[in-house]
Amino acid sequence: MILENKLPLRYLIGIVKYELTAVLILSLITHFGAFRLTDFLPDMPLAIPAFLGTSISVLLSFKMNQSYDRWWEARKIWGAITNDSRSLIMQLLAFVTHDHDGIVKRIAYRQAAWGYTLGRSLRGNDPLANLQHLIDADDQHKILAHTNKPLAILQLTVQDISAMRAMDALDVHAHIHLQETVIRLTDSMGGAERINRTVFPSTYRLILHLIIYLFVITLTISLNSINNLLVIPLLMLISASFFCIEKIAYHLQDPFKNSPSDIPITEIAKNIEVNTRQLLGEEVKATESNTESYFVM
Amino acid sequence: MILENKLPLRYLIGIVKYELTAVLILSLITHFGAFRLTDFLPDMPLAIPAFLGTSISVLLSFKMNQSYDRWWEARKIWGAITNDSRSLIMQLLAFVTHDHDGIVKRIAYRQAAWGYTLGRSLRGNDPLANLQHLIDADDQHKILAHTNKPLAILQLTVQDISAMRAMDALDVHAHIHLQETVIRLTDSMGGAERINRTVFPSTYRLILHLIIYLFVITLTISLNSINNLLVIPLLMLISASFFCIEKIAYHLQDPFKNSPSDIPITEIAKNIEVNTRQLLGEEVKATESNTESYFVM
Amino acid sequence: MILENKLPLRYLIGIVKYELTAVLILSLITHFGAFRLTDFLPDMPLAIPAFLGTSISVLLSFKMNQSYDRWWEARKIWGAITNDSRSLIMQLLAFVTHDHDGIVKRIAYRQAAWGYTLGRSLRGNDPLANLQHLIDADDQHKILAHTNKPLAILQLTVQDISAMRAMDALDVHAHIHLQETVIRLTDSMGGAERINRTVFPSTYRLILHLIIYLFVITLTISLNSINNLLVIPLLMLISASFFCIEKIAYHLQDPFKNSPSDIPITEIAKNIEVNTRQLLGEEVKATESNTESYFVM
Amino acid sequence: MILENKLPLRYLIGIVKYELTAVLILSLITHFGAFRLTDFLPDMPLAIPAFLGTSISVLLSFKMNQSYDRWWEARKIWGAITNDSRSLIMQLLAFVTHDHDGIVKRIAYRQAAWGYTLGRSLRGNDPLANLQHLIDADDQHKILAHTNKPLAILQLTVQDISAMRAMDALDVHAHIHLQETVIRLTDSMGGAERINRTVFPSTYRLILHLIIYLFVITLTISLNSINNLLVIPLLMLISASFFCIEKIAYHLQDPFKNSPSDIPITEIAKNIEVNTRQLLGEEVKATESNTESYFVM
Amino acid sequence: MILENKLPLRYLIGIVKYELTAVLILSLITHFGAFRLTDFLPDMPLAIPAFLGTSISVLLSFKMNQSYDRWWEARKIWGAITNDSRSLIMQLLAFVTHDHDGIVKRIAYRQAAWGYTLGRSLRGNDPLANLQHLIDADDQHKILAHTNKPLAILQLTVQDISAMRAMDALDVHAHIHLQETVIRLTDSMGGAERINRTVFPSTYRLILHLIIYLFVITLTISLNSINNLLVIPLLMLISASFFCIEKIAYHLQDPFKNSPSDIPITEIAKNIEVNTRQLLGEEVKATESNTESYFVM
Repeated sequence: MILENKLPLRYLIGIVKYELTAVLILSLITHFGAFRLTDFLPDMPLAIPAFLGTSISVLLSFKMNQSYDRWWEARKIWGAITNDSRSLIMQLLAFVTHDHDGIVKRIAYRQAAWGYTLGRSLRGNDPLANLQHLIDADDQHKILAHTNKPLAILQLTVQDISAMRAMDALDVHAHIHLQETVIRLTDSMGGAERINRTVFPSTYRLILHLIIYLFVITLTISLNSINNLLVIPLLMLISASFFCIEKIAYHLQDPFKNSPSDIPITEIAKNIEVNTRQLLGEEVKATESNTESYFVM
Repeated sequence: MILENKLPLRYLIGIVKYELTAVLILSLITHFGAFRLTDFLPDMPLAIPAFLGTSISVLLSFKMNQSYDRWWEARKIWGAITNDSRSLIMQLLAFVTHDHDGIVKRIAYRQAAWGYTLGRSLRGNDPLANLQHLIDADDQHKILAHTNKPLAILQLTVQDISAMRAMDALDVHAHIHLQETVIRLTDSMGGAERINRTVFPSTYRLILHLIIYLFVITLTISLNSINNLLVIPLLMLISASFFCIEKIAYHLQDPFKNSPSDIPITEIAKNIEVNTRQLLGEEVKATESNTESYFVM
Repeated sequence: MILENKLPLRYLIGIVKYELTAVLILSLITHFGAFRLTDFLPDMPLAIPAFLGTSISVLLSFKMNQSYDRWWEARKIWGAITNDSRSLIMQLLAFVTHDHDGIVKRIAYRQAAWGYTLGRSLRGNDPLANLQHLIDADDQHKILAHTNKPLAILQLTVQDISAMRAMDALDVHAHIHLQETVIRLTDSMGGAERINRTVFPSTYRLILHLIIYLFVITLTISLNSINNLLVIPLLMLISASFFCIEKIAYHLQDPFKNSPSDIPITEIAKNIEVNTRQLLGEEVKATESNTESYFVM
Repeated sequence: MILENKLPLRYLIGIVKYELTAVLILSLITHFGAFRLTDFLPDMPLAIPAFLGTSISVLLSFKMNQSYDRWWEARKIWGAITNDSRSLIMQLLAFVTHDHDGIVKRIAYRQAAWGYTLGRSLRGNDPLANLQHLIDADDQHKILAHTNKPLAILQLTVQDISAMRAMDALDVHAHIHLQETVIRLTDSMGGAERINRTVFPSTYRLILHLIIYLFVITLTISLNSINNLLVIPLLMLISASFFCIEKIAYHLQDPFKNSPSDIPITEIAKNIEVNTRQLLGEEVKATESNTESYFVM
Repeated sequence: MILENKLPLRYLIGIVKYELTAVLILSLITHFGAFRLTDFLPDMPLAIPAFLGTSISVLLSFKMNQSYDRWWEARKIWGAITNDSRSLIMQLLAFVTHDHDGIVKRIAYRQAAWGYTLGRSLRGNDPLANLQHLIDADDQHKILAHTNKPLAILQLTVQDISAMRAMDALDVHAHIHLQETVIRLTDSMGGAERINRTVFPSTYRLILHLIIYLFVITLTISLNSINNLLVIPLLMLISASFFCIEKIAYHLQDPFKNSPSDIPITEIAKNIEVNTRQLLGEEVKATESNTESYFVM
């Protein structure tokens, strides 16, 4: 997630540098080659790039909308993960009548680990690294047998809850009530995987790029009778704006891809760990996030 | 689902080839016939195609929006199917106290088969082909008596769960809790059928095509005073963009029609099978998807 | 629901015939009366109809959006009715332990009838006609005492379920579980009634028509200096497109009004009947829909 | 709710009369004062009002959208109130095993009254007037002690249900099941209050008005070189359309304010009363709504 | 929340004062420097600022939409908090069979306090100030050990409910039923935190500002051949409108930031306190809100 006050200009320029170079080359050729091309280039009425520009803003608006919706849905899913993790711990503490073996604490720690594991497997990182303080070696071993690591962790939790039920530390109603929370966590996990694996219709993006280049070309031709060097920076600024919005949308639509505009899932997972351990009555300090950077992950 | 990095240009050209041919013929006739038509053709001010172009982008934006929503809703439904299939297995493993006859495994395998069956019946393929390893012959026979095969599979699951209840392998609360998961699966199935059977208002599409052709015609007439051959490719690129977006929307709106932009339901069903069997403790390898192609089904 | 491949052109022309006639008369008067009106008519710059045309597309887009949403919501409600009808039968078969009097079958048949009754009362037809094979005379008599026939059918179902509970054919948990399905059916029924009874803000429509006529008039005046007969068909095609989209939206916004763009509730009700009876183990053939027509009801 | 076929033109004119007068005065001054102002007024290119007009339609479209969503959400809330009121009565009849004191009837009547009370307190009218036939004096007295009358009615219902539980006329599961319906009614009540009390960002409206006036002024100046009296009615019609849409949105956004475009909550409350009493087995005639008027309340 | 009728103009001017100053300086320089810059400035066709203006309205419309959705979602969350707080008290009163120690009252008071605490911690204020009449010192002490104060309050409520269950003042079903209400409150709390902590993509805002300045610059250059002082106020009004809408959106998107357009969470919390205490049977007067101001907090 990009923080508001620290955004460096180089970030914005960086995300559209290839497009801007293309526009620069294109306009320089058209502008300085114009006298040679006069016979070749048509007489372009300005109405054509003007309506293309308006169309681009409409089509960009659709794209921005859908991308933002994906991003916000991803954020909501991680909000639900936070909520249900907290609820799971509170429910366990409320319903388990006797807990000789520290099963509640084990489930709670494993739930805190689940946030990190899910986040990392969405981002393609090692899902179990550095989680020894939250998941014991035996559990880690079982988890490794599964393709889907976060699902394996949820299954361990389900098994522990069933074990408590078998020991009569839970009655059947509380068992089902806890299971419903696990189902919601399964749904959230599936929702995050869905967003991560589903490619936004990429054909749309291609067409949008094509129209932006058409716009740049027609606008350059229209303006090449104006013999003024300021036309080129103007062209570049307008097309940079369009390309930038497209790139912002492009980054938002995949919110778990290790980019600065990601949903800050590491941060959320840390927060879940702090909440979980404080609900267990432990004294934990909220870990500081890196305040040097212009984004949090 | 079309993958991002491998999209061939011929795919895009392929989906609008008829429309492009029509535009080409139209513009050639107008352009080269212009000297004969001069008396006949009106003097078309460029403002008319310009506002038509803007209008097209607005109307396309609505269509793209609704089509994308249908596609995303279909994807969500299949996400819910994944989630609820996983939950069903975890719930069975948690609540069934004794399972002499391997009923849990039978239900789990049948649930894995259900994904394939539903996917195939949505696409109009043979719903039960190659599923002998997941559904036994007796069940297959019962399923064939039904018009709606996936519904028949769910009914078999309901009957098995009731049988376990009758054997007291489940208590009444767990019975109802499992039944609720089956109800959610029934809802997802109904949702996918709904999207598959409901025709997007096709009158809207006709009008949109009419306006795009009106745009092409008025633009050609407006520009025919410009005696330059580059006008024809320009016309073709602009109208190709509009037709392409319309076609992308058209394919997205029916996400189970055996087209490259389909929801990848075969892939999702494979994934459900792997998850299901790993939850049962079996060792299964994730099957590789075909990485040659530019899309997954 | 209008089918895709069979839509006759006369349907489209039929829905805008009055508006087209008005546009034709208007443009003929302006065009041929122009020489007399020259002193009277202002010199209309084309920018005015052009921005009106763009505005119309934006305002139409809003209307189309809301109308489509109503239509899609209505379709979802009928999807939920299908799902919950199926679930109700499966639940009854799963939970009723002994059924001496065939109450389950009676409820299932009545539920199949409920689809037809609700559909017909939404469309203002006789809600109980031709349903003797699904509802017995005694029930029909009770239903007739109610203003709201589908609600009366649901109450009979609730009473039968309570009777089974009194006979101990159901335990209390299953009773509540079934009741929850009835509540969802009540909600769907209420949702369909809500869409049917709520008038879409009709003032908006009036203003939209006014702006389209303003557009036609200003465009005619702008173009009347162009002495070319092709201007009139052009005007008619552009305005026909706008009026058509408005009419499509108008028909979609009321999806239970006996028009071709209705939600096909008779078809859905037939489907529910087939599913219901197959779930009961009866052999039923899916009834063929009328394939002659360009729409299904 | 405004009915479709009876809308008088004076309603539309009435809602924008002040704005239209302002536009008339403005355009008369500019038009007839033009010869004196020629030196003072700038030479306004028509492109400026044209793009302002397009912008207005986009910004109006956003406003119309949000206002319609509020209105439709309010309608859905009242739909849910209808559904849950019906469900509450059906549930009571299904689960209460013995009802010596007519508590069920008392709750049902009070629920019918609740619709009227909620509607009136949303509209700022006397919430308990003319409800003696539905709520007895004792209850009325208790309700008067509360600031929030509809909440007080729900609390009485909760107390009656608890009393039936204490008498063992209900078992604990049915008690909770009924309580869930009361929770949904509490949610609907809260939703209606939320819409009623939350002011739509009024700063947006001010800016929109400012832009419409800017549009009128720049358009008048642009057109004042056209010496034709027809320009003034044209200006008035275009700006009337914009103002009208803004006013329609403005009325829709507050759907409980005693205006003709209100959600017809009195009508809905009557309907709930009829349904409730018919479910109790009483013979009630549906009351006729006032068919003289062009709207229902 | 800004009230409708009292909005002072200085509020609107205040929120865009820096932008307006920049526009003023820019246009003065361009206008009066024009004779020196004539050779330097290009001949800017008006079509460029015109299409930029239209694009701005489209892009602003997207931003306004998303910001309004965040604001409305925040409002809905606080509506749900009101509803669930009311429901929690009604449920406690309905299900607790004996309450020797006044636990119900303690929970209810603490729930009233929770509204204030959550509101204040969202706004970054001291979460526990002035709540001695609602939370006793012992509880306050426990809450202070937690990073997340509102979560700590919910945990105390969960512990009190479990204590009542241990004393058999509640049966297990009512225990779970109450727990579900606490889960919904946890979800609402998490939802409000999510909106508060998630930065709206700020890169979009930067680009939007850039396009508005491009619009101002190109429009100024286009109009500088018109030698009329009225052009400067016109420019300022048009750009002020755009900047104002952007600022309105900017304030709406963060609804808990101590600005006048905040969700009025203090007001809502007061309302919850009044409702809670009236449900307990206490006589409380609704506290008056400050009617002097043009907004409520």
